[in-house]
Amino acid sequence: MSLFADLGMRYPIIQAPMAGVQNAELAMAVTGAGALGSLPAAMLGTAELRKALEQLAASGPGPFNINFFCHRQREPDPAEEHRWQQALAPFYAEFGVSTDAVSNGPSRAPFNAEHAAILAEFNPAVASFGLPAPELLARVKATGAKVFASATTVAEAKWLARHGADAIIAQGLEAGGHRGHFLNQDLSLQQGTFTLLPQIVAAVDLPIIAAGGIVDGKGIKAALALGASAVQMGTAFLCCHEATTSPLHRAALLGAHGRHTALTNLFSGRPARGIVNRLMRELGPLSALPPDFPHASGALAPLRAAAEKMGKSSFSPLWAGQNVSGCRSLAAAELISAWVAEADLA
Amino acid sequence: MSLFADLGMRYPIIQAPMAGVQNAELAMAVTGAGALGSLPAAMLGTAELRKALEQLAASGPGPFNINFFCHRQREPDPAEEHRWQQALAPFYAEFGVSTDAVSNGPSRAPFNAEHAAILAEFNPAVASFGLPAPELLARVKATGAKVFASATTVAEAKWLARHGADAIIAQGLEAGGHRGHFLNQDLSLQQGTFTLLPQIVAAVDLPIIAAGGIVDGKGIKAALALGASAVQMGTAFLCCHEATTSPLHRAALLGAHGRHTALTNLFSGRPARGIVNRLMRELGPLSALPPDFPHASGALAPLRAAAEKMGKSSFSPLWAGQNVSGCRSLAAAELISAWVAEADLA
Repeated sequence: MSLFADLGMRYPIIQAPMAGVQNAELAMAVTGAGALGSLPAAMLGTAELRKALEQLAASGPGPFNINFFCHRQREPDPAEEHRWQQALAPFYAEFGVSTDAVSNGPSRAPFNAEHAAILAEFNPAVASFGLPAPELLARVKATGAKVFASATTVAEAKWLARHGADAIIAQGLEAGGHRGHFLNQDLSLQQGTFTLLPQIVAAVDLPIIAAGGIVDGKGIKAALALGASAVQMGTAFLCCHEATTSPLHRAALLGAHGRHTALTNLFSGRPARGIVNRLMRELGPLSALPPDFPHASGALAPLRAAAEKMGKSSFSPLWAGQNVSGCRSLAAAELISAWVAEADLA
Repeated sequence: MSLFADLGMRYPIIQAPMAGVQNAELAMAVTGAGALGSLPAAMLGTAELRKALEQLAASGPGPFNINFFCHRQREPDPAEEHRWQQALAPFYAEFGVSTDAVSNGPSRAPFNAEHAAILAEFNPAVASFGLPAPELLARVKATGAKVFASATTVAEAKWLARHGADAIIAQGLEAGGHRGHFLNQDLSLQQGTFTLLPQIVAAVDLPIIAAGGIVDGKGIKAALALGASAVQMGTAFLCCHEATTSPLHRAALLGAHGRHTALTNLFSGRPARGIVNRLMRELGPLSALPPDFPHASGALAPLRAAAEKMGKSSFSPLWAGQNVSGCRSLAAAELISAWVAEADLA
C-alpha cells in the first residue's frame, strides 16, 4: 500500500479540493509541505483550468490532484426556477433585489472530453471525481494519473473499486461541503467516519483515504488506527493564508456559529454540509424548494451579493465539516508540520 | 485520569447498558472479563431491580454500572394515542389484531427516590443517567458511586460537568438505541464520534468515554487516539451468548439488513437508532405520528407480537449502531479478550 509514497508524498495527507475557497496557491503550498495539494476544477472554464495547471507545473514536480464533478448535467427547468424564485421572493423584497438580476449562477461543468485532453497535456499525478463514463476514465488512466473517488457507503466503495478507482475516499457524514454519494440519495445511508471507514477498509482491497472530521494530528492517528492509508482534510485548511475563503466565511468558522452545521441542498440543489445561517434556518436546511443541482445558486446570487455587501452571510454557503476547532489562521505548511508532529508521522 | 483503574477495571471498556436485550448475566460476564458490566434498570420494577442487584452482588466485588432513565414522565395523552392507533390501523387489519389488545406497553420509570434507596443499599461502583434532580443526584453520590452521563453535544457535556458528572460519555450519532440528548431536540446538532469526541475532550476536564461506532480493537485504539479515557460498546455485545437479544434481532444484526440503520422515534416516541424495517420504511423513520416518549410502544405491542409469531421483525425495534460488523456469536469474555489484544491493551 505504498501508493502515496510512490506518488511522491512525504506524508499521507491530502488537501481536499474545495471549489470556491481555494485555487492553485493552496495546492502548491500543501504539496510544497510534503502532502498532496488539490485543485478543484469543477467551477473553472477551460482557459482558467489551463492557467491553473500551468501555475502548478511551474511550481515544481508536484504531485497534484485535479478534481472534477461528474454529475449528469440537467438543463434548468423553468417551473423549478419559478418555484425557487417565489420561495425567495420575501428575501428579494427585504433586500431590494430585482429578479432581473438573477442569472444562472456559476456553472459547474461535469468532466468532459476537453478536460480529458487538458489532463493528457499536463499529466497530473492524481485525478479525482465521482467517476466519469468508461471511455473518459480510460483516457485519464492512459495519462498515468491515479484515480481517487469518493464513497459514502460500502456499496459505493465496492462499485468504485469494480469500475477502476485506484484509491477510495471514505467520506463520513462529518465532512463539509458536497458529498460523494451517487448510488442512492437516501441520506440515512450515510455513516459517520468512525463506522464507514473500517467497513470500507474491510470490504475493498484498495488504499482507503479517510475523510470527514479529521482536523489535527490526533484525528490522523485515529484514522490510521481504523485502517486508513491516508487522510483527506478540508475544513482545517479553510482559514489558512493560502485559501481564498471570504472574510465572512472565515469569521463564521472561527466564531461560535461554526459549531452548528447541517446538510443543506439550498445552495446548489444537492446536499452539502455548511454552517447553519439564516437561509437554512428559515427554509429548513433540506428542502423541496430549490431546483436540481447545480441550478439552485443562480437565484441566490443577487441576494447573497446584497447581504454580503452589508456584512451578512445570511445567503452564502458557509461550507464546513462538523469540527471547525482545527481552523487556524496559519500558513498551510505550518498546519501540516503541526499535524505531522502530533501524529508521529515525521 | 485513573478513574477507571480506581474502579477496579482492568481495561477501559464499558459495556453499554441496553434495556430489553440483556440482564445481569451480560454485566457479570463483562465485569468478570476485566471490563465494566452495566445493568439497564429503566424497564425493571423495584423487585426485579433488587433481584438483579443481589445477583450482581453475589457474583463478586464488581465493579458494575447501574443505568437509569431520567426523562420527565408524561401521562399518556388520549388524543395522541388515538392518532397513533389510527396510523397503525391498516397494520392491525392486516395482522388481525384488535385494538382491545393495546396496553400501555412496558413502562420506563424515571430514576426516583425508591431507586436511590436501593442504590444506597447495594453501593454499585457506578450509576449512569441523563442526570436526575440535584437532591436525588446528591443521594447517589453520597453512596460513593461514580456518576457517568451521556452527552451528544459539547454544550451538553459542559452542562453535565457543571452539574456533578464524574465522567462523560461522548455519544456519537453512530450509536445504536436511544441517544442521551437533553438540552435540544434538533438532531442536526448531533455529531459523528470522530468530531464529537475530541471537541468534548477539549472542552471538559473530566475523563471522557467514547461511544458510537466502536466495535473492535481498532476502534478502541482510534477512540483513545482522539483523547478518550475509555470506550463504551453496545452493538458489538448484542450477539454474544450472555445477551438476551431475540433470535429475530440477532438474525437482522448478522444479515445484510443490519447494514442500514436510521434514527427513528416510532418505537418509543424518542429518537433511537435501529435497523430499518417495514414500520420505519412505511411510516418514515422520524414521524409526527407516535405519542411522546415513552408511550409509543403500547400500541405497537400486539402488532409486534403477531408479526414475531410469524417470524417477522416488521414492528420490532431492532436497535443497532451504524457498524454491525463486530457482532459475533461468542462469549462476552472472548470478545473482550480479542479487542484487548487488537488494541494492545494487554
